[in-house]
Amino acid sequence: MPTIVVEVMPKAELLDPAGKAVTGALHRLGHSSIAEVRIGKRFELRVDGEVDAELLTQVEEVAADMLANGVIEDVIDVRVEGAGAAGETH
Amino acid sequence: MPTIVVEVMPKAELLDPAGKAVTGALHRLGHSSIAEVRIGKRFELRVDGEVDAELLTQVEEVAADMLANGVIEDVIDVRVEGAGAAGETH
Repeated sequence: MPTIVVEVMPKAELLDPAGKAVTGALHRLGHSSIAEVRIGKRFELRVDGEVDAELLTQVEEVAADMLANGVIEDVIDVRVEGAGAAGETH
Repeated sequence: MPTIVVEVMPKAELLDPAGKAVTGALHRLGHSSIAEVRIGKRFELRVDGEVDAELLTQVEEVAADMLANGVIEDVIDVRVEGAGAAGETH
């Protein structure tokens, strides 16, 4: 069963309080080389059957409309993983 | 500035109510070929300087200890992206 992975991150210009908290914790643990942490979402969509270009385009639209909040987030990757992954990535 | 990407997903055997809600919404919109949706987290750790094997190992430990809740989540990927990404992926 192929899986389409959609990755969504907060827009670069947006403050990421959760990311800041993790950055602070890492610094307190001595990991000072980590300059910044940002936290986004990773969606795995399991697909019945093959993933063709048409389905991938539909998922890109769904990603932009539903999976990401366009005001504060960007869809940064839509790719196929696993069986049926003909290296399709947009 | 290289970025280390850490991806965390809920354990496979775990119920994912948010994922189920998205699956239902996709079906109502006619995307019936999407069998299941699961939602995880994507961390981007921006690094000052180079990413060497030692730092990558440290980040893997931090990922397992801090970025993922080991009871309900799995770290599924730790990779370097951007400048200094010598294709290091574990």
